[in-house]
Amino acid sequence: MRAIDHGQGGDASCMRLVEIAVPRCGDDEVLIKVFATGVNRPDVLQRSGKYAPPADASPLMGLELSGEVIATGAAVTRWQIGDKVCALTHGGAYAEFCAVNAAHCLPIPNGLSMLEAAALPEVFFTVWANVFQRAQFTAGDSILIHGGSSGIGSAAIQLCKAFGAAKILVTCSNQAKLDYCTKLGADVGINYTAEDFVAATLAATGGRGADVVVDMVGAPYFQKNIEACATDGRIAQIALQQGAKAELNMQALMVRRLTWTGSTLRARPNAAKAAIAESLLHNVWPLFDQQPDALRPNIHATFPLANVSDAHRMMESGAHFGKIVLTVG
Amino acid sequence: MRAIDHGQGGDASCMRLVEIAVPRCGDDEVLIKVFATGVNRPDVLQRSGKYAPPADASPLMGLELSGEVIATGAAVTRWQIGDKVCALTHGGAYAEFCAVNAAHCLPIPNGLSMLEAAALPEVFFTVWANVFQRAQFTAGDSILIHGGSSGIGSAAIQLCKAFGAAKILVTCSNQAKLDYCTKLGADVGINYTAEDFVAATLAATGGRGADVVVDMVGAPYFQKNIEACATDGRIAQIALQQGAKAELNMQALMVRRLTWTGSTLRARPNAAKAAIAESLLHNVWPLFDQQPDALRPNIHATFPLANVSDAHRMMESGAHFGKIVLTVG
Repeated sequence: MRAIDHGQGGDASCMRLVEIAVPRCGDDEVLIKVFATGVNRPDVLQRSGKYAPPADASPLMGLELSGEVIATGAAVTRWQIGDKVCALTHGGAYAEFCAVNAAHCLPIPNGLSMLEAAALPEVFFTVWANVFQRAQFTAGDSILIHGGSSGIGSAAIQLCKAFGAAKILVTCSNQAKLDYCTKLGADVGINYTAEDFVAATLAATGGRGADVVVDMVGAPYFQKNIEACATDGRIAQIALQQGAKAELNMQALMVRRLTWTGSTLRARPNAAKAAIAESLLHNVWPLFDQQPDALRPNIHATFPLANVSDAHRMMESGAHFGKIVLTVG
Repeated sequence: MRAIDHGQGGDASCMRLVEIAVPRCGDDEVLIKVFATGVNRPDVLQRSGKYAPPADASPLMGLELSGEVIATGAAVTRWQIGDKVCALTHGGAYAEFCAVNAAHCLPIPNGLSMLEAAALPEVFFTVWANVFQRAQFTAGDSILIHGGSSGIGSAAIQLCKAFGAAKILVTCSNQAKLDYCTKLGADVGINYTAEDFVAATLAATGGRGADVVVDMVGAPYFQKNIEACATDGRIAQIALQQGAKAELNMQALMVRRLTWTGSTLRARPNAAKAAIAESLLHNVWPLFDQQPDALRPNIHATFPLANVSDAHRMMESGAHFGKIVLTVG
């Protein structure tokens, strides 16, 4: 099959289309003919040698896909050959075929194209697990979403809007990104290059602060996130793009009864990923019928698999809004 | 009535027995003739001028009591005159009479004396709210309890033991305190003056770490608590006795999916305290019948109210194990 190999790693030009063997389909897996695969920031880290995949994962990049089931493992009862699915993969989606744990697949949501469905799993699993499950976002909460125009940010805006957020605040680096977030459902846009997001959050919430904060920036935002939280607020840490170390004053965590938590998706055991998938199926998938278009992912650009280097360059430029997708099948 | 006044504040000798008016009993309050009242660390802070009570609180010290209901407010249906109760108070328990929110009272647990019941509310509300509700301690969890021989520590050992802890680890400053913790139910004693508690916790848990950590030390323990946590571990911050500021690396919080939370009891709204009381009544009070002696508080010393200065000196010496109680009625 055709697949993308990143050799010893390097910049975006290090990737090559190669011919390799189709992966073996394990007993609890399905083999999927890949239609499309989303590009995610961890792919860029893996390509540049800054992230080694887990020992049991595919050495290929690619954490999500849409496609068609063409074989099922001996223990799989849920899917049949010919089923169209989207899935969270344990790597390996930058390829023509990918073997995926059957419990990490979900049906293509009603109303979405196969292309759009390829852009869902990574951000929906991440936002659901962190914002809704760990940080317990519930209807009536206000939420501050950093990086509102990113894939994660866009999904968080849409999901929190669909689930009845009282107020959605986002931070971005410019007005075009803020306008994009407003179209997705954000109520308050904060240009972090021009204003202090703590002051802006307090001003927009009558001095209360946000009930939930979603952060991928890390160190320089730690203390500010604490200060931007309402009493009983929760911080969901989903990445540490600008570092993990900072001098912190934790008084407010205790006095205002905050909860600071976070998680990465990839390191979770299979059963935990399956539980997130199950929860998404029951809680989120019905919304694709009930609120058509509310959860439609924004595809910023698509590239054929062979042009993966251009896709990575666009991701690294940081200029995109929403998702970048590679088409394969 | 007789009560303890701490004047402008100062060392333990600043306190005087004075005659003042009996407090008014509000519509949702009961007036209690105090039998005994527990001495707590916040009392010492308040006495020495380092802690100003909330504006709506009694200016008198005293956060818990046992006693008899002698009057009920117009809106109170739950308690009758003559009922014996223990209660979390909004200050004011260093006195002959105290007005208490009716929903913050609990019956004297079966098998406990009035004296013992006076030592329960502050530590049981604190441990239940932080360790069981916020940090979600459940049967089968291992727990690291700092300050194991303190009032909070003792209650945490007993409650976690009663609720099926897999392993209870405690830190103390000397062997006598560790022996005391072992008698209460601790499995692993760590003398923090002689060994590193992170290494000791990992060694005692097969390298996993503790599922829950309860800390009142603060800054110098922050990073170590994170390192001592198992994957999916929870840290409950119940005090910051040695400071709130430290340089921290939060990588593990996200990668190991930790949750860092905490709370103070006093700042909570009345309804939140009532909810803790209700949960204690349903979940913990039945254990006083089912596991007699398992939750018996250890009274280290009792002093008549007039000798409150000696009680505070003992608290400040740090030499006590378990609770110090003032007898009033």
